[in-house]
Amino acid sequence: MKQFEFWFDLGSPAAYLAWKRLPKFLRGTGATVAYKPMLLGGVFKATGNASPVTIPAKGKWILVDFARAAKKDGVPLSYPPGFPINTLALMRGAIGLQMRQPARFAPYVDAMYDAIFGRAVDLRDEKVVAQVLSAAGFAPAEILALAGDPEVKQALIRNTEEAVARGVFGAPTFFVGGEMFWGQDRMDAVAEALQAA
Amino acid sequence: MKQFEFWFDLGSPAAYLAWKRLPKFLRGTGATVAYKPMLLGGVFKATGNASPVTIPAKGKWILVDFARAAKKDGVPLSYPPGFPINTLALMRGAIGLQMRQPARFAPYVDAMYDAIFGRAVDLRDEKVVAQVLSAAGFAPAEILALAGDPEVKQALIRNTEEAVARGVFGAPTFFVGGEMFWGQDRMDAVAEALQAA
Repeated sequence: MKQFEFWFDLGSPAAYLAWKRLPKFLRGTGATVAYKPMLLGGVFKATGNASPVTIPAKGKWILVDFARAAKKDGVPLSYPPGFPINTLALMRGAIGLQMRQPARFAPYVDAMYDAIFGRAVDLRDEKVVAQVLSAAGFAPAEILALAGDPEVKQALIRNTEEAVARGVFGAPTFFVGGEMFWGQDRMDAVAEALQAA
Repeated sequence: MKQFEFWFDLGSPAAYLAWKRLPKFLRGTGATVAYKPMLLGGVFKATGNASPVTIPAKGKWILVDFARAAKKDGVPLSYPPGFPINTLALMRGAIGLQMRQPARFAPYVDAMYDAIFGRAVDLRDEKVVAQVLSAAGFAPAEILALAGDPEVKQALIRNTEEAVARGVFGAPTFFVGGEMFWGQDRMDAVAEALQAA
């Protein structure tokens, strides 16, 4: 069975665009995906990389570029207040579910991405996070407990360190075997690599 | 007649890849191109942007990404000693020819790109530049004189300032009317914009 890895952070609009394309991509390639939550802020710190929005001209253009991609894909794309946001707690929730309740991992990521980039919800407010979680069928207290679990925290650190060690510097990043691909705009190349695998 | 602008610097491997694709692209789109020489170093300085190779992990990946693109396109790609190189004199030669002998502009850019990224020739050595120019049918002294012409120097500064003012932060950059596209990997989007124009 052909498999690839999808490294992502809930704060990355490019990873959101890729996430939205994954169902069709999986059907088209017949491949399976290993989801790899990582903390993009940690990757940036370790690699010296930074969000494109830190260069004003690049940030301005990339919003246009992402908007073109979203329009082409037919998905909504907007940006929450304070973007780029701190995703530490949200990513701990993601990896915690992946470890403890794997069947609920994808619905959680879906709900979070839809809130953040689909509806520009301000998740800096914990009460708003709780509302979004409840609306998606999650018990906020349960996710909060997961996010505070030392093993979960360690797992996110470990994934982030693994990402950096393997050459990741941004999101989304795909691996097909030892081959790395960065960006929502490299999914065609990922498909070709899966085809050749 | 549909037209687009192609902003480039001889030191950019991404612009080299795009340049090599242009003949087929022009046939395919039926568009005409306005070549816009700029000094990428000046653009970087003005915008705060930098070559991706300044972030080691990104630099490592982008060489793989460019190699994949070059292989797909069937063009040679290698990097000269000291890459990224200072292209000030080379770009003055380019814009000088564009101003004074426009018919010789494209052959000059061809010869330079083939030397730099096709054969990894070390153009930091003026004698080597002279050899490359002679082999391509240019009189080195003539190009040197052009590159030293104050009007030519000013024209390159003016283009670079215009690029920055219009939002350019890297190379290659394309404009279709007011729409900007950055990267050799956005030529499909440029073609679509020309189609819609």
